[in-house]
Amino acid sequence: MTQFAILIFDKLTALDAVGPYEVLSRVPGTELVFVGPAAGPLRTDTGRLGLNADAVIEDVTEPDVLLIPGGEGNRPLLKDDRVLDWVRGVHEHTTWTTSVCTGSLVLGAAGLLEGKRATTHWAYHDTLEEYGATAVTERFVEDGKVMTAAGVSAGIDMSLALVARMFHENVARAIQLGIEYDPAPPFDSGSPEKAAPELVSLVRGMERSQT
Amino acid sequence: MTQFAILIFDKLTALDAVGPYEVLSRVPGTELVFVGPAAGPLRTDTGRLGLNADAVIEDVTEPDVLLIPGGEGNRPLLKDDRVLDWVRGVHEHTTWTTSVCTGSLVLGAAGLLEGKRATTHWAYHDTLEEYGATAVTERFVEDGKVMTAAGVSAGIDMSLALVARMFHENVARAIQLGIEYDPAPPFDSGSPEKAAPELVSLVRGMERSQT
Repeated sequence: MTQFAILIFDKLTALDAVGPYEVLSRVPGTELVFVGPAAGPLRTDTGRLGLNADAVIEDVTEPDVLLIPGGEGNRPLLKDDRVLDWVRGVHEHTTWTTSVCTGSLVLGAAGLLEGKRATTHWAYHDTLEEYGATAVTERFVEDGKVMTAAGVSAGIDMSLALVARMFHENVARAIQLGIEYDPAPPFDSGSPEKAAPELVSLVRGMERSQT
Repeated sequence: MTQFAILIFDKLTALDAVGPYEVLSRVPGTELVFVGPAAGPLRTDTGRLGLNADAVIEDVTEPDVLLIPGGEGNRPLLKDDRVLDWVRGVHEHTTWTTSVCTGSLVLGAAGLLEGKRATTHWAYHDTLEEYGATAVTERFVEDGKVMTAAGVSAGIDMSLALVARMFHENVARAIQLGIEYDPAPPFDSGSPEKAAPELVSLVRGMERSQT
């Protein structure tokens, strides 16, 4: 049975993980597990939401898909040998190793993005390149078996593409219909190319103050 | 201080709640609380994710905004006088009373949609009308101080509109940029008007089997 493993940790960005969860957990005949450096309750980056890690990383060693979300809470993981060793070990077995937002920095710190095209939240492209990746401005990027998504909400788009690649395009389309993912944002400010420059500066400052 | 309250319960659909949370919790100078019929841990509709209700409904009586998500787990609430009384009581004080997906059925059961234009997941328009609402096919609908969104992912769009209405359009635009909400679904099957008829029948059957 295909197993999806989503790594969660204190101060993650909830939607990075829950967007993909909502897509991936709907694939029939698969299982999905939220796994953490410690099992048990944790809080998201805003402090307003509690999620539960149902397994500790050592208990999930051969998932078919690994997904790492972002959020300020993954910064300590960038220097955590226990977690990085686990990521590297899991990667040897995965069909796909994936990330959303700054989750790609963890993949980078594990040495998995060296020489690869990858993406992350738009405010962190330079940080991603410090790990030897070529940062590209795409909604999600595939290089070998590594798939990385842009910021936060981009994990929904990536997960639909992943389901189509792993199973069948119609499975992805049925899930898209089930979650009524026919997006209609009331504004068109979702990328730095589209938003007003002063908003881009403001949000970049807010984002980067978290590192 | 503006307080957002999101009602959660066993077997909710996670993205219905977490999409709006990711938008609303980013508004500076506000607070957001996940409130449940019981405080403590609960599981989502797939059984794969644990969330925490940080407060019990009796402890949150005058939020400025109430948001009710959907999911098969809200069906018992439709006949739960304790919860429906709470919804009615809270509604007397709110600036906005809102829902995502089949969360609108709870508003309907509380008698708050009588004669109102409202929406829900596309597979439940007929059920919504049983509560005296006029079901409309829009991403989100405003009637008086009641705002209802379509299925699952539509809560993100509604929440951005809500933030613009309550605060300032630029706050909504900054949050949209922060969560990089520049959607690019790999397929165009997010509504019954766009998906293939056989997929619509399939997904409708799956959705309705949960009631």
